Amino acid sequence: MFTLGIDIGSTTSKAVIVKDGREIVASSVVIATVGTDGVSDAIENVLGESGLEHGDISVTFATGYGRQTYPDADGQVSELTCHALGVHHVFPDARTVIDIGGQDAKVLALNERGRMANFVMNDKCAAGTGRFLDVMANILKLDISQLEVEAAKALHPAGISNTCTVFAESEVISQLAAGTKIPDLVAGICKSVASRAASLAKRVGVRETVCMSGGVARNAGVRKALEQELNVNIASCDMAQLMGALGASLYAYEKA
Amino acid sequence: MFTLGIDIGSTTSKAVIVKDGREIVASSVVIATVGTDGVSDAIENVLGESGLEHGDISVTFATGYGRQTYPDADGQVSELTCHALGVHHVFPDARTVIDIGGQDAKVLALNERGRMANFVMNDKCAAGTGRFLDVMANILKLDISQLEVEAAKALHPAGISNTCTVFAESEVISQLAAGTKIPDLVAGICKSVASRAASLAKRVGVRETVCMSGGVARNAGVRKALEQELNVNIASCDMAQLMGALGASLYAYEKA
Ligand code: SF4
Repeated sequence: MFTLGIDIGSTTSKAVIVKDGREIVASSVVIATVGTDGVSDAIENVLGESGLEHGDISVTFATGYGRQTYPDADGQVSELTCHALGVHHVFPDARTVIDIGGQDAKVLALNERGRMANFVMNDKCAAGTGRFLDVMANILKLDISQLEVEAAKALHPAGISNTCTVFAESEVISQLAAGTKIPDLVAGICKSVASRAASLAKRVGVRETVCMSGGVARNAGVRKALEQELNVNIASCDMAQLMGALGASLYAYEKA
Repeated sequence: MFTLGIDIGSTTSKAVIVKDGREIVASSVVIATVGTDGVSDAIENVLGESGLEHGDISVTFATGYGRQTYPDADGQVSELTCHALGVHHVFPDARTVIDIGGQDAKVLALNERGRMANFVMNDKCAAGTGRFLDVMANILKLDISQLEVEAAKALHPAGISNTCTVFAESEVISQLAAGTKIPDLVAGICKSVASRAASLAKRVGVRETVCMSGGVARNAGVRKALEQELNVNIASCDMAQLMGALGASLYAYEKA
């Protein structure tokens, strides 16, 4: 039996097809820009990749910020449930999940059975989310994917004293004008996001194994800064951005 | 005896000359842009306006965010002390002072003698400060001084659901694209700043007479929205932006 999970986020749509609640058959991430239908594209992509057709999918569940916008799903399920399921599938030992998305950040504590025991969330403030990175990449005229490359080149990471995205933006502009090198600024920017995530994580309590999910997990600069802040190793994988969609697909199987 | 007070803020420098701790002789506000010396300009302006010379000033005190950057002052004094002194001089009945500056906001409770009894402050988050208005004016391609004019024309003030400056910025851009009228957007923007200030004020406790000081007090849109939020009349005057410098000048007289 094939099940489909769709995660409709603020900046991307993700889709994952799972076979028999175990094997990941195909996955897709589509950047949802204004005027495009990211969800349909993501679904067409996974179907194409898997060689399946719409009729082969037994059950579809949607999750994420925009899950109500896809009425063809058989049901909706919360992001927290999906992230817990997805991470537990990939990392059965995970006890703490730090999920930094395009415009929010959450930390989940999982119990031994992979169920959510506790969580904290920031969805009110752009600091410590992907949006902070977007704003800064924009000032530095970098693509978001270049940030980790730049951060790795830093010799003297810049200190950014303002947490607020708006004030930090001014601070980065001043430092840039004063001659601070771009890699050092980017390392400081990654550290700023990491330190916000770390304070969320400390509120939940950090138990190993610690995993990252969400789009920002792909940024090794943030991941390494977070490892330093929390003094733990952080497990991450190419699937980090797909944990929600994977979880929705696993949930669909449970419900089938 | 003439005393001079200088208030070196994040976006403007202000100077006030007071005679014998009572009479305001001259005042000046200079927008401090990068590369200009706002403080010297403000001082030259008040001296010019008053017909006095440097040697006529007995004592000078500096206050504000940048007060350490003016070494020629006889001393420095905190903004809170100055705002309390300045407001008490102009409005002896003031018991609550809501001060919204270029990048922070404070609420002071004054006792019967005009001394500060309590205060709360936000200097970490751009929401609810002048910076929020700057960001929004920029998106709408308006000068900051046009905001109150536009707000006054609003028929159906727009609801802005995000408090965060960064998220609210995106929301305003979307609403603008969706055809919301500029006056309605501006009224919503003013209301957003007012509601943040109102929640600060409620933490201190609102006692009448309520006064506004700081640069944002000149914006009648924010002032009226704040009157509605708090359900009180708010006293304001052309001097609102000068309360800090006035207070520093009065403090200089006390110390003389
Ligand atoms: S601190 Fe800055 S980024 Fe955070 S809510 Fe305030 S304005 Fe937004």
